Amino acid sequence: MATTFPLNGQNAVNRYKHQATYDVDTIHSIVNSTPVLHISFVPDPSTPFPVVLPMIGQMGLWPGDSSDSSEWACYLHGYVTSRVMKLADEAISRGEDGMPCCVCATKVDGLVLTLTPYSHNYNYRSAILHGFASIVTDEDEKLWAMELITNSVVPDRWANSRVPPEKSEQQSTRILKMKISAASGKVREGVPEDERRDMKRDDVLDRVWTGVLPVYETIGEPQPGPYNRVKKIPEHVASFVKASNEQNKKYAYEASHKPAPQKRKKPGEDD
Amino acid sequence: MATTFPLNGQNAVNRYKHQATYDVDTIHSIVNSTPVLHISFVPDPSTPFPVVLPMIGQMGLWPGDSSDSSEWACYLHGYVTSRVMKLADEAISRGEDGMPCCVCATKVDGLVLTLTPYSHNYNYRSAILHGFASIVTDEDEKLWAMELITNSVVPDRWANSRVPPEKSEQQSTRILKMKISAASGKVREGVPEDERRDMKRDDVLDRVWTGVLPVYETIGEPQPGPYNRVKKIPEHVASFVKASNEQNKKYAYEASHKPAPQKRKKPGEDD
Repeated sequence: MATTFPLNGQNAVNRYKHQATYDVDTIHSIVNSTPVLHISFVPDPSTPFPVVLPMIGQMGLWPGDSSDSSEWACYLHGYVTSRVMKLADEAISRGEDGMPCCVCATKVDGLVLTLTPYSHNYNYRSAILHGFASIVTDEDEKLWAMELITNSVVPDRWANSRVPPEKSEQQSTRILKMKISAASGKVREGVPEDERRDMKRDDVLDRVWTGVLPVYETIGEPQPGPYNRVKKIPEHVASFVKASNEQNKKYAYEASHKPAPQKRKKPGEDD
Repeated sequence: MATTFPLNGQNAVNRYKHQATYDVDTIHSIVNSTPVLHISFVPDPSTPFPVVLPMIGQMGLWPGDSSDSSEWACYLHGYVTSRVMKLADEAISRGEDGMPCCVCATKVDGLVLTLTPYSHNYNYRSAILHGFASIVTDEDEKLWAMELITNSVVPDRWANSRVPPEKSEQQSTRILKMKISAASGKVREGVPEDERRDMKRDDVLDRVWTGVLPVYETIGEPQPGPYNRVKKIPEHVASFVKASNEQNKKYAYEASHKPAPQKRKKPGEDD
């Protein structure tokens, strides 16, 4: 079982190499804990104009596919237009696995305030997937993917809502499946770091506050809707809110106190 | 002064039209309050493989440019490689304004839990910009853009850090400037909405909790770094943390209780 994604021209991270990761589990976890993914593709292959759109997505391994964890696909739900379907079909007729696309997941964990604006940074986690997307046509896989994506919003939500879907719901739903050809991740965590020349200046050190502002997503109190009849907040919702808040907050605070990455290269130094 | 972006083939929003906006102020505000933007471009124009990367960015109007607010550019700071510079130069030599690219800003404001998984939704705000990016070469504009971007992380941070920049800092910094040819936004806010047929089912209404989980970004307590000497959290940091948290939380809760958008079209209905 592969535990890293193959390194190739598409995913090699040229800058800040010590922050790069090709570890499958890290990349899965970044993608699967990010509420919105950004997918880009080229609507008209005769011109180099890309589009980037927000979609809800989740990586997973359909039991009908290979059982190698590096073979996990990314399933995406959202703005699937006939244009996207046409592009996927055309790519397949060219002998490819689907529409060439790129997906990025990014989480901000902290604002890193340093002595000089040029050393300011974020604590963050990001993952980039390259691959080929096609529309899921197998009805069982589509149902499985819809459950995967629904449960990524709130765990166990699928079983706690009105299922199974009506035939018309299944027919009107489109899921994009992106087979991944390359992937990479970047993680920055830790305290601020500045250039040595600034660290020697008492006038600067005595005047400029340096530190990290932790950043984390908070889920507020569940707000019942106008036609809700269930008085008690259900357990699958309550436990998700509690666990999600604890976990996000803990990560951001812990990241604020980790050692700084080794000295960053100057922007452009190894481009 | 234009108050809407021109509608063209690049930015026409085909689905959920009632959620679409071309209003300049709304689009500026979504982009400028999102801590990470996602930019996509095509690294090799001979193949339709896009890349999407996270960058820190901000829309603004450089005083040296036109004073029409629809002429605001998007300034981006981050992973600017020599590949991007080469693409920008090549595009300019083709007579274009720079490298064709697309930028997306997305904020999640709530998880909208409905009766059936197929009606689940997010409360969210997103903006998409199409345009041409080039590297800022004017030293004054670069300094101005760097201040704009720094103050977008924490207001007034520029003046409260070690400035002006050293010559070497200015030289090693690259800012992308994206001139905008088209832009659009989408906003979903409000209570859940379901299909009429589910709203008539007592067995479903009595069993499935429906409502909104507000989602908002929280800034935690400032964590001083290892070489910080300034004991008191400075006012520009403290007031930012307070204002940002109040504003984000308020938006998410208010969005949870607004009326639902008019009945959504079925996915794909008008594609």
